[in-house]
Amino acid sequence: MKRSDVDTPALILDLDRVERNIETLALFFSSRTANLRPHFKTPKCPEVARRQLAAGAIGITCAKLGEAEVLAHSGIETSILLANQVVGRAKVQRLVELAGSVPELIVAVDHPNQVRAIDAELSGTKQSVGALVEVDIGMHRCGTRDEAATVELAAAVDKSRLSYRGIMGYEGHAVLVVDPEERRALTVQALSELDRHRSALARAGLEPEIVSAGGTGTYDITGAAPFVTELQAGSYVFMDGAYRKVRSEFEPALTVATTVVHARGRLLITDCGMKALSHEFGLPEGADLPLRCVALSEEHGHVLIDDDAELTLGPGDRIEILPSHGDTTINLHEEYAVVRGEEVVDRWPIPARGKFK
Amino acid sequence: MKRSDVDTPALILDLDRVERNIETLALFFSSRTANLRPHFKTPKCPEVARRQLAAGAIGITCAKLGEAEVLAHSGIETSILLANQVVGRAKVQRLVELAGSVPELIVAVDHPNQVRAIDAELSGTKQSVGALVEVDIGMHRCGTRDEAATVELAAAVDKSRLSYRGIMGYEGHAVLVVDPEERRALTVQALSELDRHRSALARAGLEPEIVSAGGTGTYDITGAAPFVTELQAGSYVFMDGAYRKVRSEFEPALTVATTVVHARGRLLITDCGMKALSHEFGLPEGADLPLRCVALSEEHGHVLIDDDAELTLGPGDRIEILPSHGDTTINLHEEYAVVRGEEVVDRWPIPARGKFK
Repeated sequence: MKRSDVDTPALILDLDRVERNIETLALFFSSRTANLRPHFKTPKCPEVARRQLAAGAIGITCAKLGEAEVLAHSGIETSILLANQVVGRAKVQRLVELAGSVPELIVAVDHPNQVRAIDAELSGTKQSVGALVEVDIGMHRCGTRDEAATVELAAAVDKSRLSYRGIMGYEGHAVLVVDPEERRALTVQALSELDRHRSALARAGLEPEIVSAGGTGTYDITGAAPFVTELQAGSYVFMDGAYRKVRSEFEPALTVATTVVHARGRLLITDCGMKALSHEFGLPEGADLPLRCVALSEEHGHVLIDDDAELTLGPGDRIEILPSHGDTTINLHEEYAVVRGEEVVDRWPIPARGKFK
Repeated sequence: MKRSDVDTPALILDLDRVERNIETLALFFSSRTANLRPHFKTPKCPEVARRQLAAGAIGITCAKLGEAEVLAHSGIETSILLANQVVGRAKVQRLVELAGSVPELIVAVDHPNQVRAIDAELSGTKQSVGALVEVDIGMHRCGTRDEAATVELAAAVDKSRLSYRGIMGYEGHAVLVVDPEERRALTVQALSELDRHRSALARAGLEPEIVSAGGTGTYDITGAAPFVTELQAGSYVFMDGAYRKVRSEFEPALTVATTVVHARGRLLITDCGMKALSHEFGLPEGADLPLRCVALSEEHGHVLIDDDAELTLGPGDRIEILPSHGDTTINLHEEYAVVRGEEVVDRWPIPARGKFK
């Protein structure tokens, strides 16, 4: 099947570009002490994780239990970092059950109640759950803020049935800052905060074995920091319109194919609206053609051909759009049409799509 | 199971309210010549459609083939209006196949190529497909614009293997206008445009049997217009934060339950981000509690308790959020937890979720 025969709207994944992106980041880590533990929340697809692991990744990062369960059931045997807090009885039960079916499971904690709940659930089982204390390094979402709280929580983990493994911080407030100097300054500040917590733990006899940070936008800084042991980058593998403004060494590998259903001069109405394309990072642009989305309704894209472009398109014509945010766009789709150039070479399901529990 | 025991994030559907909303709109139509053909793109769930049909709806409106196929496979036997253009070979084939398994299938057209493609596909089959000419009545998305084009297209339908049934227009630019006078003025203008096309067709001997319009925001005007025969309202059945500002006679029946995972004074971090809650109509508010979403990350909600509220919440506490846009939020979920008061009385899958082809 040809790329242009895939019914729309559809996610088109350019496998050559995916492979080059994986290679590019693997090459960076090949000469660093830190390792890569790529984030599953971007691809949500075991086929991609398998390729990342083959290229040297030391495990996979997941955002939630549902993703980790999908990985565990895919036959991939690897260490999983669940880089968020697991709160609530039902989820804690699933966490401990999951620990029995993966080689290693590590979870983020930022409150003693989480440690107590997992500890209680581990009682009487043979399961092992590792824990990283999440430190707020500037994003002001979750995480401990002062070093005393970090040390206290690490000590509580160390005394519990969980295995104390270290700390993590995510410089989410820096990763998409377009100006490189500003991004660097924010990242360096965030890393120094993380290092302060690391030092406090070391002084308390709780030296972290794992210090996890970072994302695609800042990997060159966080991944080169001597005290960081692993990175959680995810978006690099496919890229998207937002990350493209920040990192040019990776290639946009994911597009959404859509069909023009109506045309009026330069304004095209397509069959791809906000139920197939997210827009919280801005309205997306054409992948190769000089056009941009000017509005999305539920089932329609409103796409404008650039003023100075010599391009005429009409009903039935097909265009590809570069999503401004890959993660949330992928979350809307059931599968990737995997292409090499113009050939569809595979279909990969997205089993972790919509698994938000 | 109790409502408060449903694991989060989850869609909570208040069945008493859903039933009252269905009753309220059915009562309006009981004394009008127009009928209701509720839109499936809101609930995406046959259980809801079944109740709307039992209350007197004459059929169901769908936004796309995938939704109509879900309805057809659910055992519901009713007339289906596919209120968008079907473009592309694969979809036209599915359309004609679908026509064989539903009592009546009507599709919108706005270009002769669509008529030709469906006509060709109908050749040699026993299937019957009805068509409405879509008229642009002010939203400037799809639809014919001048009466001559409408008449020409209706005549083309009439001469084809499709059955010519009439016209449709959607005053989508008016439905969410908060000011009632402005909304009324826009709607009256849109309706007069629709009527102009209807008259032109009548003069050409192509009097429409069906004149379809409308939505939840304008049903009292469009549904009372003497020449309108049916309405496509959808959101009334659950309501959402956006429609709540426009229509107070319907009750908000749909909330998203979420758990606080982290707290810092009045700022709560919850387990429900943009992968479980849409926000294109604005950040949502608390359903019953004095709080509002101030940001959404992929997997986290950033929720602020109102300044003057006497309310303290912490990790593990549960809150319910009123989505600002129901349709796209529902599209992210696999099921409804159906409640009456505090009791969970059922679980309804959402089979048409993510069916965007």
